Amino acid sequence: MKKRMAVRPLDIGKGRIEMPHGSGGRATAQLVEELFLKAFDNEWLRQLNDQASFHVQGGKMVVATDGHVVSPIFFPGGDIGCLSIHGTINDVAMSGARPLYLSASFILEEGFPLIELEKIARSMAESARLAGVAIITGDTKVVEKGKADGVFITTTGIGMVPEGVRISGDRARPGDRILVSGTMGDHGIAVLSKRENLTFETAILSDTAPLHELVAEMVACAPDIHCLRDPTRGGLATTLNEIAHQSGVGMKINERSIPVKGEVASACELLGIDPLYVANEGKLVAICGEKDADSLLSVMRDHPLARDAAVIGEVVEDEHCFVQMETAFGGMRVVDWLTGEPLPRIC
Amino acid sequence: MKKRMAVRPLDIGKGRIEMPHGSGGRATAQLVEELFLKAFDNEWLRQLNDQASFHVQGGKMVVATDGHVVSPIFFPGGDIGCLSIHGTINDVAMSGARPLYLSASFILEEGFPLIELEKIARSMAESARLAGVAIITGDTKVVEKGKADGVFITTTGIGMVPEGVRISGDRARPGDRILVSGTMGDHGIAVLSKRENLTFETAILSDTAPLHELVAEMVACAPDIHCLRDPTRGGLATTLNEIAHQSGVGMKINERSIPVKGEVASACELLGIDPLYVANEGKLVAICGEKDADSLLSVMRDHPLARDAAVIGEVVEDEHCFVQMETAFGGMRVVDWLTGEPLPRIC
Repeated sequence: MKKRMAVRPLDIGKGRIEMPHGSGGRATAQLVEELFLKAFDNEWLRQLNDQASFHVQGGKMVVATDGHVVSPIFFPGGDIGCLSIHGTINDVAMSGARPLYLSASFILEEGFPLIELEKIARSMAESARLAGVAIITGDTKVVEKGKADGVFITTTGIGMVPEGVRISGDRARPGDRILVSGTMGDHGIAVLSKRENLTFETAILSDTAPLHELVAEMVACAPDIHCLRDPTRGGLATTLNEIAHQSGVGMKINERSIPVKGEVASACELLGIDPLYVANEGKLVAICGEKDADSLLSVMRDHPLARDAAVIGEVVEDEHCFVQMETAFGGMRVVDWLTGEPLPRIC
Repeated sequence: MKKRMAVRPLDIGKGRIEMPHGSGGRATAQLVEELFLKAFDNEWLRQLNDQASFHVQGGKMVVATDGHVVSPIFFPGGDIGCLSIHGTINDVAMSGARPLYLSASFILEEGFPLIELEKIARSMAESARLAGVAIITGDTKVVEKGKADGVFITTTGIGMVPEGVRISGDRARPGDRILVSGTMGDHGIAVLSKRENLTFETAILSDTAPLHELVAEMVACAPDIHCLRDPTRGGLATTLNEIAHQSGVGMKINERSIPVKGEVASACELLGIDPLYVANEGKLVAICGEKDADSLLSVMRDHPLARDAAVIGEVVEDEHCFVQMETAFGGMRVVDWLTGEPLPRIC
């Protein structure tokens, strides 16, 4: 590609997003080249076409998409950039697929500082690089000041599912075991603490992380895993209810076996919220046949992202599709869907 | 899938988007089931997983993504819904690919009327159905009132490129012919007329349309088409400059041969803007070898979406990559990139 005619380079340090950055004209091209392309640089983006092309093998493919509107955009343990990469990689991976490529679409508010946008783009690039997934195409729109909230990022990912893997939310069967990969509620509490300016004795960091490598090891160990899902918005409680309804089964879980960090439990108590309803961004729920549970748990615990993995309960017959929990005090209670919205804009 | 426990159905007529619709909990599930799933209904969405899976043949695949922030969301000849389908189908098709599947991600502003959201979802569903492309996965986020502008929709599309087709913006060569598929500027002027409450003698309608079937016929006729691009934001002028720079060539076009509707030309004169910089949403630019130009033009004119197709100029050697135009008065002028932003939020 020829270099464009000389124009003053973007002033990343002091510049801000202006309406012409969304015009599709020279200013858009400059923003793409000097900020996004510089951060994401790869052979596909460099083609500068309105779409990216690549070769695929035949087989079972998955697509997942996620809009990211988290507030604040920088939070303990992460930012909207890495979150937008991990969130979509994880949605792809929860089918058992190996994520291959991502697209990224930005909606920017006029006046947004370029220095923050660059920081976000670098965070996306670094997360994608570490995960071995390329951001191959994108889009940039700009809306007037007051018509958005800084930056919204929608990422879409594709991946290929290994032969024989058939993971779906409708495959939970009575007798199956329910596993989680680690502590619940870290992400939601990290975001909330920043938003509410809360300080805790120990800093609570978001658990945002890409789970596809963990999933690859789990699938290699137990190709017949029935369900995988990352308990993001709505938390563990909502994810279990979703799967129960999709599969037409009930679930019995045990509160004592659900890993929750002490500081997260304390923060939840302080804030009057239940960690089972708090979002996670680097954890998964797995449901598998009883015969696979032990080996799966062992593979999970060997992985750095699932050291605290635990079996938290089992699938039961229940025409009402209730998720019931034996509480720490030995009683039973129904764990309902999240209703209302205690934690808006958590991802 | 089992039916969820009975809850009051959404009041589409009078209801509005509330923060819990973005919680990921019960309200989100209800919005998805009663509004989106009802409109888009298909076997993939019905699985209600966080990703959609399908079988692909091996080969060359393309991905394109586009955020849609058009204002107003309903405009003469279309709305943000059909635009979000056509825009991404067209970006996929401009590689010569047959579009297969779409994802749709919504960012909704608290207070947005459900009746308008349903109208938009139906418009998307109808456009996708007519185009033979399924919306197979999606996402819904909600932000507080004043943090977005009604609704933003990001769609991502995938498609497969037929064997032997190798269309790219860097393949224009001196001697190539430059064709457009029809009149320029209709979409931008339609949106602007609604926004500014302008009335013209003849209503100017957006040209929003899916171009993949036209492209399929063009590719079948001339598999060696060099470049295809839809001149959306920034208009024809910007698209030609982009391709000139990608290919390292110049272009000479003839103003008299560029089709512009009389009423669009008048509106542009009134508004002091140049139709060459105004967005189109149902038109394409094609660049092909001289030998293919006549047959390609003839195939295009036989298609209902390209009746007014025309050869508007040719590719020339030029190390400065200038796009030059012979004006209606016989002079020559350089047609530069769009600079500034005369028409914000046109798509």
